[in-house]
Amino acid sequence: MSGSLEVGMETTEGFEVPTTDPVCIVGGTGALGFGLALRLGQAGVPVIIGSRDGERAKEAAERAGKAVPGGRYSGHENQDAVKGTELVILSVPFRSQSETLTNLKQALTPEHLVIDATVPLAAAVSGKATRTLGVWQGSAAQQAQEMVPEGVRVVSAFHTVSAALLADLGHELDEDVLICGDSKEDKARVARLVDAISGLRPVDCGRLEMARILEQLTALIISINVRNKVRAGIRITGLPTP
Amino acid sequence: MSGSLEVGMETTEGFEVPTTDPVCIVGGTGALGFGLALRLGQAGVPVIIGSRDGERAKEAAERAGKAVPGGRYSGHENQDAVKGTELVILSVPFRSQSETLTNLKQALTPEHLVIDATVPLAAAVSGKATRTLGVWQGSAAQQAQEMVPEGVRVVSAFHTVSAALLADLGHELDEDVLICGDSKEDKARVARLVDAISGLRPVDCGRLEMARILEQLTALIISINVRNKVRAGIRITGLPTP
Repeated sequence: MSGSLEVGMETTEGFEVPTTDPVCIVGGTGALGFGLALRLGQAGVPVIIGSRDGERAKEAAERAGKAVPGGRYSGHENQDAVKGTELVILSVPFRSQSETLTNLKQALTPEHLVIDATVPLAAAVSGKATRTLGVWQGSAAQQAQEMVPEGVRVVSAFHTVSAALLADLGHELDEDVLICGDSKEDKARVARLVDAISGLRPVDCGRLEMARILEQLTALIISINVRNKVRAGIRITGLPTP
Repeated sequence: MSGSLEVGMETTEGFEVPTTDPVCIVGGTGALGFGLALRLGQAGVPVIIGSRDGERAKEAAERAGKAVPGGRYSGHENQDAVKGTELVILSVPFRSQSETLTNLKQALTPEHLVIDATVPLAAAVSGKATRTLGVWQGSAAQQAQEMVPEGVRVVSAFHTVSAALLADLGHELDEDVLICGDSKEDKARVARLVDAISGLRPVDCGRLEMARILEQLTALIISINVRNKVRAGIRITGLPTP
């Protein structure tokens, strides 16, 4: 595995697109994971779609390839998928987060940076999607940090971006991705990945413990969507324009 | 007291400004309360500044009047201040919220709509301003709803607007005010008040229980401010432009 996410430029089908190390999306067959796969593939990032079911992963990779001509996709069972890259987006329902991380214990190494997008919506226990569960560690991301093997770092991100808008490639994104984590270097690496997706801006929100707040924002966005019949996102005002 | 917040137009010093029922700001001598007083006065809303100390309230009202020529300000001890209007913004530190509401028990009546802006920052107990305290009722706004006399309604708002930017009248505001509450009518009334302030847009975020999330946003904004050396605010994307 190479040591850093280098964003260069190469020409694919006449367009200059950034190239980076591959990204693995555990739960890449789900709505958010698949939406991210489409956008990252479009940005020139090779995407390894992971799923508990290797066949479903392959099928999703084929579907993504059809939606994004020129996109580089492959599909594998989660444990194999994470072996192909250092950057792992964890995009599974909260009820599956713990089991998924347990199954990845042998596959994750200190080279891995896990980008946790898990949100403890009360929907996990048949509650409302506008409410969240209390997580003993403080947040799903902190639970992930506790569960991954020693040396694996966790950054929390992608809580407020609509899966439907990500998947709608005709839609121009125009919102922020709030990021938190304990290492500036890791956050910068995730920020470069976010930056590669057109219309998304990364915002550093502080230490990993801030995931307690960031994860709540999914419930807030869902509540705003219901009230206003929209697909809302978040922009932080007052920051220098990108 | 009149029954609703009617926003009309009258001419003050050559400018058309909206006129509304007066608003009382309990804690109007504090940074957020005073900033709101300036902006509301500028918008043509008569402002009654309330404080535990009537003299400090009067002094703040004079200061506001100097900053906003044409603004209509008066200052009173909190219990007298709320008697002059139906709309009460509660803008006190969390450690004073309970005591303040206890002292207002005789003064608040079912005509009153309390707009709670209290945030349970851990700073209240000498903790960090990027962390919050757990409130038994779920949020400071829900604690307020429990404490006010029967019939008094509570709406939660104004958690993410920078006090410093409100007070800097040369700064053009450009952000959202997230509102939650159990009555659509009450929220609409608060929304009209927010709309009166140039550059602020009200967004309905759902029932009062969503204050659990909205109040966390203050800690998030503070964390973003520290990391990025800015005075951040929030915009919800995907809503129809005002």
